[in-house]
Amino acid sequence: MSKSKKLVKEITSRDEDFAQWYTDIVKKAELADYSSVKGCMIIRPYAYAMWESIQSYLDKKFKETGHQNVYMPMFIPESLLQKEKDHVEGFAPEVAWVTHSGDEELTEKLCVRPTSETLFCEHYAKIVQSYKDLPKLYNQWCSVVRCEKTTRPFLRTTEFLWQEGHTIHETKEEAENETKRMLNTYADLCENVLAIPVLKGRKTEKEKFAGGEATYTIEALMHDGKALQAGTSHFLGQNFAKSFGMQYSDKEGKLQYVYQTSWGVTTRLIGAIIMVHGDDNGLVVPPRIAPIQVIIVPVAQHKDGVLEKANELKDRIAKIARVKLDDSDKMPGWKFSEYEMKGVPIRLEVGPRDIENNQVVLARRDTGDKITVSMDDLETKIPELLDDIHNNMFEKAKKNVEEKTHTAVNMDEFKDIVENKTGFVKAMWCGDRECEDKIREETGATSRCMPFEQEEVSDTCVCCGKKAKKLVYWGRAY
Amino acid sequence: MSKSKKLVKEITSRDEDFAQWYTDIVKKAELADYSSVKGCMIIRPYAYAMWESIQSYLDKKFKETGHQNVYMPMFIPESLLQKEKDHVEGFAPEVAWVTHSGDEELTEKLCVRPTSETLFCEHYAKIVQSYKDLPKLYNQWCSVVRCEKTTRPFLRTTEFLWQEGHTIHETKEEAENETKRMLNTYADLCENVLAIPVLKGRKTEKEKFAGGEATYTIEALMHDGKALQAGTSHFLGQNFAKSFGMQYSDKEGKLQYVYQTSWGVTTRLIGAIIMVHGDDNGLVVPPRIAPIQVIIVPVAQHKDGVLEKANELKDRIAKIARVKLDDSDKMPGWKFSEYEMKGVPIRLEVGPRDIENNQVVLARRDTGDKITVSMDDLETKIPELLDDIHNNMFEKAKKNVEEKTHTAVNMDEFKDIVENKTGFVKAMWCGDRECEDKIREETGATSRCMPFEQEEVSDTCVCCGKKAKKLVYWGRAY
Repeated sequence: MSKSKKLVKEITSRDEDFAQWYTDIVKKAELADYSSVKGCMIIRPYAYAMWESIQSYLDKKFKETGHQNVYMPMFIPESLLQKEKDHVEGFAPEVAWVTHSGDEELTEKLCVRPTSETLFCEHYAKIVQSYKDLPKLYNQWCSVVRCEKTTRPFLRTTEFLWQEGHTIHETKEEAENETKRMLNTYADLCENVLAIPVLKGRKTEKEKFAGGEATYTIEALMHDGKALQAGTSHFLGQNFAKSFGMQYSDKEGKLQYVYQTSWGVTTRLIGAIIMVHGDDNGLVVPPRIAPIQVIIVPVAQHKDGVLEKANELKDRIAKIARVKLDDSDKMPGWKFSEYEMKGVPIRLEVGPRDIENNQVVLARRDTGDKITVSMDDLETKIPELLDDIHNNMFEKAKKNVEEKTHTAVNMDEFKDIVENKTGFVKAMWCGDRECEDKIREETGATSRCMPFEQEEVSDTCVCCGKKAKKLVYWGRAY
Repeated sequence: MSKSKKLVKEITSRDEDFAQWYTDIVKKAELADYSSVKGCMIIRPYAYAMWESIQSYLDKKFKETGHQNVYMPMFIPESLLQKEKDHVEGFAPEVAWVTHSGDEELTEKLCVRPTSETLFCEHYAKIVQSYKDLPKLYNQWCSVVRCEKTTRPFLRTTEFLWQEGHTIHETKEEAENETKRMLNTYADLCENVLAIPVLKGRKTEKEKFAGGEATYTIEALMHDGKALQAGTSHFLGQNFAKSFGMQYSDKEGKLQYVYQTSWGVTTRLIGAIIMVHGDDNGLVVPPRIAPIQVIIVPVAQHKDGVLEKANELKDRIAKIARVKLDDSDKMPGWKFSEYEMKGVPIRLEVGPRDIENNQVVLARRDTGDKITVSMDDLETKIPELLDDIHNNMFEKAKKNVEEKTHTAVNMDEFKDIVENKTGFVKAMWCGDRECEDKIREETGATSRCMPFEQEEVSDTCVCCGKKAKKLVYWGRAY
């Protein structure tokens, strides 16, 4: 195994330099590559396959709840972007502008969509007349562009992939329910598929979506104690409806404005997978999203019958899991480290002795444990093991959140947590923007969310000492 | 049925004004809408669902043949686009240029990808070292932008959706096989899924891909006798390999350039579906791609037991086909014309009398025929009928191609066909660009392809009378 050890050592230790460790994994597990386009990345097959799993899970959920996919243009004319005042202020500084087509200057410049509310609003205003046309529950899968000064693969790139849902409704209540329903869909994705525990809550006014009324969020905690916003769902009220004239005639024939929502998750979820589950041997992919769930590594594959048996096992396992057989001429030790780096949940080893004993060895990536299993039991053992790995990964991640969540009742405690303990800071807040700004300035922490499950950990604001209004989770974040 | 007739009359007759008929269908069947972005369209849910069916069919075929999906940036720096001389000449006049990010001017302008050869080349040059790394079989689903002066929904828009496959190989033979394999995959999609017969062949030098060595194409014929290029597959040789330094060391350790292919189909296939199959009552959707294969319209639905039975049938049919029950309070006649307009292959009518007799009426969209079927037989009758509709649609379309394919041995005959008979002109060609240009100038017809199945319909060029080299299919085209 000396070769295996050598390969493994090629990545930086996670606790030594988390940022470098992250970059190493992105490169060594072949997840992304840089291109000559500043701030943009190439999503390589292994990471793209994870995104496809996320897409397929969400798309099914969306459709089951009556949503339909559409495709809007990638460009937004300047005048259309400007229709909702807060919205344009929020996005204009970071949009990419198309000014020429071939050699000709455009009469009106177009931005590459940073998000598509304005296009959906324009379309909805045209196609909706009556309450009978409502609700409209549309979604689109696409990429958007927000120019970023400093970028990191998956976490912050100028272009990224996402889905954006845009819905309109007759009543406020219906729209609010939709906003929360989709937040729950995202939370289920994170917890039940990606094995990432999340905290649900509402963003402060400062952190909410530009042009919306309320933003709900799921927040995850990375291994290094920094937070990551994993998905957001916005209740837009009637703001855009009024700017874009999205009206319908109700049952009494009166004109009413619609209530609106929008919601999205992005390829940054792949960044979260890396930072929540990865270790010093590389990536650890949650089984339900894993492009390869079982990797078969034959031992002494030149010997009679080994490859035949490995192929036979592959065909059997293919019926219950995503499986790959690596019959290349590399040494087993090399293969072991390669698939450890790629975070494949289960490695199945099979050699001449195993065949003799009608057994295989199953090694799990999350714990490193190995078990010997009868070949007859694979159809039951493998699904069980995949579930077990999922549960163990989720519990481990949850423990990390619990250990890295601390309560502060004054700024000294707050700073101590941010500087020394890392993680979420639970602290009360008076509701004033000034305190929020001051906390950020002094600690680098931002308000992550006001959790739905409120507690009163103190009765005064952690910053100014005035009467507290809300419990807020704070933290440094990606 | 008077209301039904009225609705139907709202579209222009196909033989009166084909272009207006097309526009009417796009609007009335809710396939696409214009946006305020010049030249771009909104793909509405019904059309997008067809695109999703195409995607899901092709994606499966791609993966079965070892292809992997990736995602490349949507931008290409000017200097990268310029690396292959013919390629930039072909595309530069129609690209959209991003020059600013927020208020800042970029140091190098970026074009929005018109196609992604250059990005794939740059990436491949980086990740491929040895013959062991080959072949690389990548594909991406995305949108591309080519600025167009005159646009029509699905057929020619500034932005369109497509997939683009990009592969590299050790040998010329392997790359050529890949090019043809993907052309066949496209032909199978058209014929077996979309019920559109296609002609396979090679493009002339004039019509081939900018920067490639050979372009293969599938050509379809629309109801009005105009041709439509339905998919292309390019053999790129080593042209890009040399410009981008895509080299690998072979088994002897010598550096070699790779052989390359690229291939794609686009959302214009939806335009082809409309123009091949549609009629004066609206769209006719090929069953295998239909978002709704069976629409259930209850008759006298207010009567006891009708809706219950309709729901029961829906649940049964859902197991074998994509089914929808329209239980809205519109009159059955309105529903009939609505789903005729949308081209749903089978309408199932069920009313009190039918329930009494344990039967339903199945009306097929392609022929208008109605049959009465026992409720017990739906699980066998519906799949049979869907297949039958597919076959009938294909045969009808094939007959149209046969009737509109004519042979010309001189320019008078050529002009007569183009002007009066419409359709494909089969004619011999000497191989000179001059004749190709002259034919276009005088008739408006372009060379569609040199079919793989060559015949000698004459021994002289239809244009100049010199010795003929190739049989070419010509035609006016979308």
